[in-house]
Amino acid sequence: MASSCILLLSGGLDSATCLLIARREGLEVHALSFDYGQRHAIELECAREIARRYGAASHRIARLDLAAPSASVLTDPNQAVPRDALGDTSIPATYVPARNTVFLAHALAWAEAIGARDLMLGANALDYSGYPDCRPEFLEAFERMANLATKAGVEGERFRVRAPLLALSKAQIVSLGAELGLDFSITTSCYDPSDDGRPCGACDSCLLRGKGFREAGIADPRSGVRP
Amino acid sequence: MASSCILLLSGGLDSATCLLIARREGLEVHALSFDYGQRHAIELECAREIARRYGAASHRIARLDLAAPSASVLTDPNQAVPRDALGDTSIPATYVPARNTVFLAHALAWAEAIGARDLMLGANALDYSGYPDCRPEFLEAFERMANLATKAGVEGERFRVRAPLLALSKAQIVSLGAELGLDFSITTSCYDPSDDGRPCGACDSCLLRGKGFREAGIADPRSGVRP
Repeated sequence: MASSCILLLSGGLDSATCLLIARREGLEVHALSFDYGQRHAIELECAREIARRYGAASHRIARLDLAAPSASVLTDPNQAVPRDALGDTSIPATYVPARNTVFLAHALAWAEAIGARDLMLGANALDYSGYPDCRPEFLEAFERMANLATKAGVEGERFRVRAPLLALSKAQIVSLGAELGLDFSITTSCYDPSDDGRPCGACDSCLLRGKGFREAGIADPRSGVRP
Repeated sequence: MASSCILLLSGGLDSATCLLIARREGLEVHALSFDYGQRHAIELECAREIARRYGAASHRIARLDLAAPSASVLTDPNQAVPRDALGDTSIPATYVPARNTVFLAHALAWAEAIGARDLMLGANALDYSGYPDCRPEFLEAFERMANLATKAGVEGERFRVRAPLLALSKAQIVSLGAELGLDFSITTSCYDPSDDGRPCGACDSCLLRGKGFREAGIADPRSGVRP
């Protein structure tokens, strides 16, 4: 039996690239997405298409009842998504309290239930290090906790939290995605897309994506950004 | 403003005792229960009543879409709950993969959103140490992870995972609950209650509760067990 992993799949290009990395390694990939009231529901449509296109063994979209949606601009329709804030070094307004902790906890539960040992996510700490739960020290602490939390861990199996893009620049991720054959047109990165799913072009995530494509010298079929 | 805590409230006597401990300390208590398809839904009715009776500032019941309900007898109606298995030293069949990790992750998200710093739960490692996610080493690892995961943690606030019953015997918990004025009749412990909520008297949890009451020399109004 192939080794398997749980992949946090957001619909963005980072987690899509992770899916291709995992498939190249021969892992059986169980993709996990969350419907947590995010304003960019186009993410979930992209996640579905990415999972289907790149051979995920299964794909779950778990409905999450996050406790306080008003705590982040990503889940509160009454707050505006900041624009042109990429240089800001504080924790972004798009931070969702403990989001990666909650996502990874669910991934761990699923992993233990089906015998998967790798928890993979597209976290990146280089280009956009404002999120505390994308830092290597957090991921290491989660892995350590996971191996104490679980029956599998106690019995000597090891869960691994894998963030293969952690130290890559966005340009490097774009290049890697291209090398692995990723169709970028089915990935979305925008925090504030239009109703029909088109990227705004001005939020942090659009700016970062645009910069990545330009530096990689690759055209982005989704945004129309050209190198 | 009173300091506040998020309390994992199951409807059992342990977490009910924790609520009274937190209230005695003057904490504002936000109780969090989960509807995760557990077979003993009477738990949630008890949790509601306990929260109301003992002055929780708020009570949320979050619907959780656990990934693989068949992984535990507590969530799979096709598996029988083991009886008279209390002496068994292996991890019990009632173990739900990563349950406390998922519960605490949600508690952390809510805590950060409302400015609470204490995450309290009724975990106990003495009488019933079969669950990996009730051990002090797990709770410490979760706390450490939580302070790396969050904006509040990065900014120097400290989350604390508090399990005030961790080292108490069930008899000591019963005595403490009685001392704090807990009405045991509105708490439930059974893993396999009848449709009208009556305890089976034979599952691990009933046996342990009965032993606790007997050793404490207190009658249990719910089960009818007398010292």
